[in-house]
Amino acid sequence: MSASDRPAIVRALREGGSFLVLLHELPDGDSVGATLAMLLALRRLGKRAMAVGADRVPRPYQFLPMAEQVRVTGEVSLESWDIAIVLDCADPERAGDAWPLARRAKKLINIDHHVTNIGYGDLNLVDPGASATAELVYALVRDLGIEVDRDMADCLFMGIMTDTGSFRYANASPRTFRLAAELMEAGASPEALASSVWESRSISSLRLLARALTTLKVSDDGRMAWLTVDDVALAETGADEQEVEGFVNYPRSLEGVEVAMLFRPMADGRTRVAFRSKGRADVSRVARALGGGGHPRAAGCVLRSGPDGAVDRVLAAARQEVSS
Amino acid sequence: MSASDRPAIVRALREGGSFLVLLHELPDGDSVGATLAMLLALRRLGKRAMAVGADRVPRPYQFLPMAEQVRVTGEVSLESWDIAIVLDCADPERAGDAWPLARRAKKLINIDHHVTNIGYGDLNLVDPGASATAELVYALVRDLGIEVDRDMADCLFMGIMTDTGSFRYANASPRTFRLAAELMEAGASPEALASSVWESRSISSLRLLARALTTLKVSDDGRMAWLTVDDVALAETGADEQEVEGFVNYPRSLEGVEVAMLFRPMADGRTRVAFRSKGRADVSRVARALGGGGHPRAAGCVLRSGPDGAVDRVLAAARQEVSS
Repeated sequence: MSASDRPAIVRALREGGSFLVLLHELPDGDSVGATLAMLLALRRLGKRAMAVGADRVPRPYQFLPMAEQVRVTGEVSLESWDIAIVLDCADPERAGDAWPLARRAKKLINIDHHVTNIGYGDLNLVDPGASATAELVYALVRDLGIEVDRDMADCLFMGIMTDTGSFRYANASPRTFRLAAELMEAGASPEALASSVWESRSISSLRLLARALTTLKVSDDGRMAWLTVDDVALAETGADEQEVEGFVNYPRSLEGVEVAMLFRPMADGRTRVAFRSKGRADVSRVARALGGGGHPRAAGCVLRSGPDGAVDRVLAAARQEVSS
Repeated sequence: MSASDRPAIVRALREGGSFLVLLHELPDGDSVGATLAMLLALRRLGKRAMAVGADRVPRPYQFLPMAEQVRVTGEVSLESWDIAIVLDCADPERAGDAWPLARRAKKLINIDHHVTNIGYGDLNLVDPGASATAELVYALVRDLGIEVDRDMADCLFMGIMTDTGSFRYANASPRTFRLAAELMEAGASPEALASSVWESRSISSLRLLARALTTLKVSDDGRMAWLTVDDVALAETGADEQEVEGFVNYPRSLEGVEVAMLFRPMADGRTRVAFRSKGRADVSRVARALGGGGHPRAAGCVLRSGPDGAVDRVLAAARQEVSS
């Protein structure tokens, strides 16, 4: 582990009295899963503990144990906690407007697996070799001598499963597979978890997908492909914004495509762009060149132009990365 | 293992001189992966070995080692082999027109993980607890004392990954995850394998998907959903028949849907129907009632009527299973 105060963190978890656990903005399966597992562990230790995030727990994760107890920022009064634990956030801003709540804690613990984590905690457990932050929470749970029950196993498995794209991405290591085996033995149900994430679509989201796919464009060399989803498509299908997430994986799934994009023209005249790479191209460089940011394989930016202008600018920038 | 002549099979693999290995019709990742791993093992033992199937190796598996050496039935002359090994076939008919080639062998070995396997071999290794036939080939390879190299690991991992839906289905056990870890350590590349299966779509298949999704229908109670793909859609998008496979998973992915169907009206006036269940309903019963067959979660039939008549008949039959 690259920056590890692991023994000190275990002591702090044992000795602290009250804990605030932070999710990141637009939480994914790892943010929610790691948070709920931590919450369960703290309750098991008899601690006062609360989880808070800038956004609500998305629907696919709402069935997880204790998910209904996660608060959004506005519901939490400013009070002083012994310890704030920030999970799965490369930097504090990732926690959005929940971050000010954490700053008032006496001690800050930063647990994360992003290689770009800046080590902003008083105590840091940052391991880019972990497939998910849930892997690190699992390690702490075992250090604490807490038995992993079915509820905790489901939460931890959810984090690992979603962050590895169901064990398909390069971050899935032999260790990841062995942890998954252990979590199953502790009671995790991969099938039910996967079903909630990948088999609980709304009809409107399938109708929106049908429409989005009709906008598919592929560059002449076949290495870039993109979709466009505008407000009209959302309104006419009755789908909501969250359901657009993930559509960028369709152009990404094309043979030969290295960089996939999703253009989302917004009501204010700007266009939000999501980038995905299959691995060779570094889309974080493209996004940064356009004023955005992200990871080598997943990045984004917002451009001050309508969809047509945005496509032109983005293709020009992405083409350099694709041919390099 | 429910019917296991495992030690006798290991002896037969050591002692035989020539081997014919059979794939099943329309081979999937497990049929191809298990076959190629067996072929690699036999070559390692210095045996004469050939693999044959009724159909060509589908595109996503063609990059696997030795895939180019798999023969289709017409390319193989009738000769007598010491041993024929039939893989992943619940009954001999599953091998299609490759089966007569196997019948001429002096000894028949049946290796499979389907619960319905009828034990048709002279020697049988049938284990419904195995996630994939590749798991059983792996067990034999270890019994033989053969070191698993990168090529073999990729083939075995492919079988396990595809038959468990990327470790999501109920057949993925803790043992499955541990085998996956071992295969990674032996050199398997989950990311490359997954990319070949799930990220190598053709543009025409995405265009066909867009069209197919516009045909989405959902029953009033929300428990059945279906798509229809006709010849016009295939012709106008330039997609081919194989690319329709898997589309039934889109209606299946809807929240609340228990049974999903795909209707494929054919040129001869009949309609082919594919069924998928999320687990509660047994679609093999529906398919059998309509003259077809299959497994509880995946089944099919062919009806002597056009699409409209087929939908009416199928819904009537499926409704009983859904409400039971």
